[in-house]
Amino acid sequence: MSVHLAPEEIEAESFRIIDAEVGPHPWGPAEWPVVRRAIHTSADFDYARTMVFSPRAVSRGVEALRKGLGIVTDTTMALSGIAKPRLGRFGIGAACFVADPDVAREAKAQGITRSILAMRKGAADRGNGIFVIGNAPTALFELLRLIREEGVRPELIVGLPVGFVGAAESKDALLALEDEFPDIPFITNRGRKGGSNVAAAVVNALLILAEEAG
Amino acid sequence: MSVHLAPEEIEAESFRIIDAEVGPHPWGPAEWPVVRRAIHTSADFDYARTMVFSPRAVSRGVEALRKGLGIVTDTTMALSGIAKPRLGRFGIGAACFVADPDVAREAKAQGITRSILAMRKGAADRGNGIFVIGNAPTALFELLRLIREEGVRPELIVGLPVGFVGAAESKDALLALEDEFPDIPFITNRGRKGGSNVAAAVVNALLILAEEAG
Repeated sequence: MSVHLAPEEIEAESFRIIDAEVGPHPWGPAEWPVVRRAIHTSADFDYARTMVFSPRAVSRGVEALRKGLGIVTDTTMALSGIAKPRLGRFGIGAACFVADPDVAREAKAQGITRSILAMRKGAADRGNGIFVIGNAPTALFELLRLIREEGVRPELIVGLPVGFVGAAESKDALLALEDEFPDIPFITNRGRKGGSNVAAAVVNALLILAEEAG
Repeated sequence: MSVHLAPEEIEAESFRIIDAEVGPHPWGPAEWPVVRRAIHTSADFDYARTMVFSPRAVSRGVEALRKGLGIVTDTTMALSGIAKPRLGRFGIGAACFVADPDVAREAKAQGITRSILAMRKGAADRGNGIFVIGNAPTALFELLRLIREEGVRPELIVGLPVGFVGAAESKDALLALEDEFPDIPFITNRGRKGGSNVAAAVVNALLILAEEAG
């Protein structure tokens, strides 16, 4: 019974199962650890075919992490899923502004999502950092607007909002960013699925790669 | 574009899409809001057929919440996904012990998961509370052991661990609990899927029902 396996054995065995069940796949050695961790955290093999990386997104994401640039998330859940000891190793600060009182107040006043205002605050706070969106399509749309209209230049976008209204569309819009801003790397997926857990898993995979690169 | 919808309109529209795409289903009026919120948070329609409720689990879970009993989660992510203002309304304290230094120290010393020790600490702290497991099969197996061997009697178990090693088995074991302890209500699903996001969504759905019942 699994209860008798040590934690590191459980993870290794999980990865063996994922490798075996996915079989031959198109992912390179840079991307596969990221895709595999997304599957590991969700038990959802859809990610083996829906994830999309801009060119060199993994190596550039790893570089950004090793520089110790700040992380902004759209949800406290994504923030809480990112491995804090690993962040500490690179001196990375991570923040989520969605629960801030001024964000809540403004969202109510303007009738827009708190996620939009949380992204604005994140961009003001750490505009060239790593943006991690695991829930709100409105956050991803707003980040794209901040890039186009306000000169925000993230070092990496992890764009994995989930849901039925706007999530797939927001990720299509992120994919289209590549033509205009080929220098902004992103990791995303196609379709409705996603989530704070998957977004955090992607960041954790990059953090592990960053440690291995050290 | 979704960005122009108010937050409450986005949720209502999401629920309309879920209702339309699921079509006729076997869920009663008590369970459907819970199943639907699991789908809403994951964009995964599998939950429409894999979720399992013990008899009257929803009404008993709502009762437990209205009593203000404490919540223990296996991950900080599940804890962070539970709506804090709603908890506050019922005076519910929620805790996760997995990141506690004594838990980490003991886990290392014994070569077992931190999740196991976090459940033990949770049971010692609030044994008749609500246990929410969104990640670790080992946490759910340990909770079942605590019930059988140490007299722990949760008022509700939300058992939705995810993964490839032990998750499905731990949920089968939870389902088997009903024969021995018919008075312990649970909400779970069959198979590998689950997650802290889905577990938190189930609790949030119950909290909304608890508010509506008030």
